[in-house]
Amino acid sequence: MSSKGIVKRSEDFSKWYNELVTKADLAEHSDVRGCMIIKPYGYAIWEKIKDQLDIMFKETGHQNAYFPLFIPKSYLSKEADHVEGFAKECAVVTHYRLKNAEDGSGVIVDPDARLEEELIVRPTSETIIWNTYKKWIQSYRDLPILVNQWANVVRWEMRTRLFLRTSEFLWQEGHTAHATKNEAVEETEKMLGVYAQFVEEHMAIPVLKGLKTENERFAGAEETYCIEALMQDGKALQAGTSHFLGQNFAKAFDVTFADKEGKKNHVWATSWGVSTRLMGALIMTHSDDKGLILPPKLAPIQVVIVPIYKSQEQLQEISDFALQLKKELELLNISVRYDDDDNKKPGWKFAEYEMKGVPLRIAVGPRDLENNTVELARRDDLSKNTVSQDNLSSTLLKLLDQIQKDLFSKASTFLKKNTSFASTIEEMNKILNSKGGFVEAYWNGDSKTEQKIKELTKATIRCIPLTKSSNGKCILTGDLNSKKVVFARAY
Amino acid sequence: MSSKGIVKRSEDFSKWYNELVTKADLAEHSDVRGCMIIKPYGYAIWEKIKDQLDIMFKETGHQNAYFPLFIPKSYLSKEADHVEGFAKECAVVTHYRLKNAEDGSGVIVDPDARLEEELIVRPTSETIIWNTYKKWIQSYRDLPILVNQWANVVRWEMRTRLFLRTSEFLWQEGHTAHATKNEAVEETEKMLGVYAQFVEEHMAIPVLKGLKTENERFAGAEETYCIEALMQDGKALQAGTSHFLGQNFAKAFDVTFADKEGKKNHVWATSWGVSTRLMGALIMTHSDDKGLILPPKLAPIQVVIVPIYKSQEQLQEISDFALQLKKELELLNISVRYDDDDNKKPGWKFAEYEMKGVPLRIAVGPRDLENNTVELARRDDLSKNTVSQDNLSSTLLKLLDQIQKDLFSKASTFLKKNTSFASTIEEMNKILNSKGGFVEAYWNGDSKTEQKIKELTKATIRCIPLTKSSNGKCILTGDLNSKKVVFARAY
Repeated sequence: MSSKGIVKRSEDFSKWYNELVTKADLAEHSDVRGCMIIKPYGYAIWEKIKDQLDIMFKETGHQNAYFPLFIPKSYLSKEADHVEGFAKECAVVTHYRLKNAEDGSGVIVDPDARLEEELIVRPTSETIIWNTYKKWIQSYRDLPILVNQWANVVRWEMRTRLFLRTSEFLWQEGHTAHATKNEAVEETEKMLGVYAQFVEEHMAIPVLKGLKTENERFAGAEETYCIEALMQDGKALQAGTSHFLGQNFAKAFDVTFADKEGKKNHVWATSWGVSTRLMGALIMTHSDDKGLILPPKLAPIQVVIVPIYKSQEQLQEISDFALQLKKELELLNISVRYDDDDNKKPGWKFAEYEMKGVPLRIAVGPRDLENNTVELARRDDLSKNTVSQDNLSSTLLKLLDQIQKDLFSKASTFLKKNTSFASTIEEMNKILNSKGGFVEAYWNGDSKTEQKIKELTKATIRCIPLTKSSNGKCILTGDLNSKKVVFARAY
Repeated sequence: MSSKGIVKRSEDFSKWYNELVTKADLAEHSDVRGCMIIKPYGYAIWEKIKDQLDIMFKETGHQNAYFPLFIPKSYLSKEADHVEGFAKECAVVTHYRLKNAEDGSGVIVDPDARLEEELIVRPTSETIIWNTYKKWIQSYRDLPILVNQWANVVRWEMRTRLFLRTSEFLWQEGHTAHATKNEAVEETEKMLGVYAQFVEEHMAIPVLKGLKTENERFAGAEETYCIEALMQDGKALQAGTSHFLGQNFAKAFDVTFADKEGKKNHVWATSWGVSTRLMGALIMTHSDDKGLILPPKLAPIQVVIVPIYKSQEQLQEISDFALQLKKELELLNISVRYDDDDNKKPGWKFAEYEMKGVPLRIAVGPRDLENNTVELARRDDLSKNTVSQDNLSSTLLKLLDQIQKDLFSKASTFLKKNTSFASTIEEMNKILNSKGGFVEAYWNGDSKTEQKIKELTKATIRCIPLTKSSNGKCILTGDLNSKKVVFARAY
């Protein structure tokens, strides 16, 4: 094991995650409580996530805009449910100036520079955006508004984990305004579909699509749709949410429009978001005890070429070959690193690129040059093969595509294998305490029942699946005609 | 004049600017003091700026990363000059929780949730980043670090103007670490070059490259390089800065590296940034009394097609033609809008797209279809021509290129015409009070002289040009061997 080795998943999954995030150079904790530093390699993956989502948002007619970081405190109280759910754990700005300490010890907050009304660092932007939409919307001609924002948000957290739960995180938040309820519901569902498509096709993570229960709904939403993914330790992770907000925010901020007949109506709203939390999902779905495994579509480096040589002449010959191959691959939009660093041994490099999840590794030595071959290693299944240099570019292109598919199919198999059915609380606990995973069960639709099951199992209802299913007996109360829902212990 | 008309530049330049920003749908003030809302059309322009700069940063070997929004108050005091220049007008977070008011009137700041150390919303990130680099750098092998961050920053402002001076703004900040002074100076100059190239080639704005005087230097820098642009009202605007930070931050945060011989040295640093202020420069350089003028490379819509018709049959025929043309243009990566909105008259549309600065407008009516022509209007010079439909795509492609060049050349002519030389304070004031612009003059290099000239003329030294020039008599003191520098009144 290299000096960069990490603990095994089977020994301590949580520690494995932390060590992987650090050693693959993805992120680290800052000295500011709960705020992370996203390192260049981690940020390069986030950029790929962001760029692809941005394309998909634009293809579905959305535009980006930017709204203020700060929200006046009083705005948060305007939507009653929203304030209950969100207003509490926030960073509060109370002053706007520092001054030199009189004793020369540094700077202090200037007591004369107190804000009349405190400002909250946005935990989410519904309130400031709907306060703005009020000015943008007069008539049905101004609708729909299909706007997205890429931004940082802050929700004060006491216990933080890199990517999964941090006080500051990066995300996108879509905020749309519509003339009719139907159109808003359609938008909510459309964006859930965009998220599911992105997460499955680009992140290679299969997801369940469903509705949240009332308990788990976004504060201020009429309905919260979500996609739920399953991590390797059997815990669920909410990967994205799309909210149908009804007329709640329009009413709170008095946003109306005149319809074709000139009649005034309140506007219908949606909001939807995914965050840097997706990075956590990506890591915990695919990676192994050697480090990160990345689906090729999100890999900053898709192919690494490592020369195996003794003499400088050998290196020169290998470099000629490698640089030519690199050029060919780049023409196919494959990102390649040729690592000819003379200070590091091949074995060190192999471990390093395994840790960083580079999907394909090519090793080339003098014998390979003689034989017109290379050694080709797949990161996902750790297989190694000697392959011909003939048509190598197209071999690699096909293989990247294959790896993308294989990762999705492996994760799908895992999800299926780890989806169980329980008809009693005991059964559910038995499953959750052994392999975990998604547990389907019937639930009578009552919040108190949900709460009680949570107390008994530490599992929450992850979603009410969108697919129709038969009715049955509630796992807790035995009520007939209960709905099938999906439980899991979750991040 | 349409209902969307704006005041003339000659009447009130400042009002013209504000009206244009609002009526071209670029940005607006929010209810949060000093914070702006960047509207979708304005943000689309900013995205083009951002995307191109990002490409250029990556081409020069830089990677993106992300550092915390918050900086512990004590960090700001660590670099003595930095705290003097920056620490004062900042948003200060003192609490991390709200709670319900007992009287049910809303939420209040929870007095029990006071932070032990206040957090400052970053006004710039040198301190938090150098505190991080301390952990990243041990040996010369860890250098250079070439990192950039796209982020929001906050500097509390009492008098704000959209894009030009806002309390919150968007920017990028590059922060690099080097083993030698030479390498850091080279990096500083290289990034100034990148900025100049971007602003000239993409924004079509000619700039002066130079050094700031000690007075105008970034707080904590050994040398600040800048690019300076000239607005249509004769005032200068600093469009970008690149700082050679010496070892100041490395010493303040104790960042050292072991060189090849194992000897410890402090690291050398640079930082460089441009912001949404560039949007202000873009507007004030090119636009006219009819609204925005955009260089084609930054225009979200490069070509708009407006149908001129009476009957629905006519519209149908025109639409067939327009959609075909749109398709052809999109294959050439030209962004096109076909505006067949039946609720608006062509005249209204013409005024609207002129306000929004769409570089080329095509109007097509039934007669055009008969004659195999279209009416083609250029936004920049307001010229109109009837042109053949044959090879129209390539005509438009060439014309967009021509407009890009013409805008730069027009702005360059303006800059040359408005660059004067003054040998006395009276002369300088006469120039500044009539046409304004850049005024070259000799200066003895003394900060007090600089300050005195500023008091007498309201002009500051914009830069000490990088190009060599003859020495002469100081405009204030008459000292011989004074350097030629560039003065202007500035934004």
